[in-house]
Amino acid sequence: MKHSLSMKHSLSVLLAALLLSSAGGALAQQSAAKPEQLIKWRQSVYQVLGWNSARIKASVYGQYNREEVLRSANAIAALANSGVGSLFVPGTESGKGWKETATRPEFFRNPQRVVELAGNFNREANELARVVATGDEAAVKAQFGRLSQTCKACHDDFKLKD
Amino acid sequence: MKHSLSMKHSLSVLLAALLLSSAGGALAQQSAAKPEQLIKWRQSVYQVLGWNSARIKASVYGQYNREEVLRSANAIAALANSGVGSLFVPGTESGKGWKETATRPEFFRNPQRVVELAGNFNREANELARVVATGDEAAVKAQFGRLSQTCKACHDDFKLKD
Repeated sequence: MKHSLSMKHSLSVLLAALLLSSAGGALAQQSAAKPEQLIKWRQSVYQVLGWNSARIKASVYGQYNREEVLRSANAIAALANSGVGSLFVPGTESGKGWKETATRPEFFRNPQRVVELAGNFNREANELARVVATGDEAAVKAQFGRLSQTCKACHDDFKLKD
Repeated sequence: MKHSLSMKHSLSVLLAALLLSSAGGALAQQSAAKPEQLIKWRQSVYQVLGWNSARIKASVYGQYNREEVLRSANAIAALANSGVGSLFVPGTESGKGWKETATRPEFFRNPQRVVELAGNFNREANELARVVATGDEAAVKAQFGRLSQTCKACHDDFKLKD
């Protein structure tokens, strides 16, 4: 079966919509939450990702603590799998959670790019958890580098500078 | 072998110290982070727990969405297992993260009670993830209730009222 370009486009938009709505009832459920709450939640998610990233960084560039890295990597993977896209629903393009949102307006106008970047992050986050559980420190360090690149790629495109 | 009361006490204090320091290099690693950052991280963790709790609540008291509940419960369990105690190190008894800490001073003076409450939370959080993966909606609802009770128990003892 040959897919037309417009069908491919439709599928991409659908995929983006699913990701952004966290695939299911999330959109309906979370419509009860105010934009300010959704923004506060997503800002909190990124802080928690930052905390766990800092712990892994301290371990792979300092004294390696496998248990510490494992619990950090598992937390990052669980959040990557948690459907954070559902916190970026229409109505949250601007507004204040803990502080003004740092998400650039372009984020909401480029669902295909968002899906691509989010997919990269999810893939590398889950791979990191797998590597920590099974691999040695060097492999973990390399995979942590790949994960960090996916964070940076999204920040470069879609995060306002401090 | 019979343990004396003082030995039991010493073990409890050791356990508390391990929990609070996240069992390992975490204390040394995180001494690099300022108290304000540690407080911001822990406030963020509770927001993320609140987000995922809200999603589960909406599902078990509304239209049940197993995938949504599963990803939420997995995120809660991963955070429960992540060593959040390491964000409550000495020096963080007061101070401002996103806002002034809501942790009561009593928290830092009752490590045994903290260990008990944290242990209850961790147990019920992991049990919820297990029940969601294997059980029906009624079982999930009951287990979510048990988890929520452990949140409330700790808030009652150690969280300042808004």
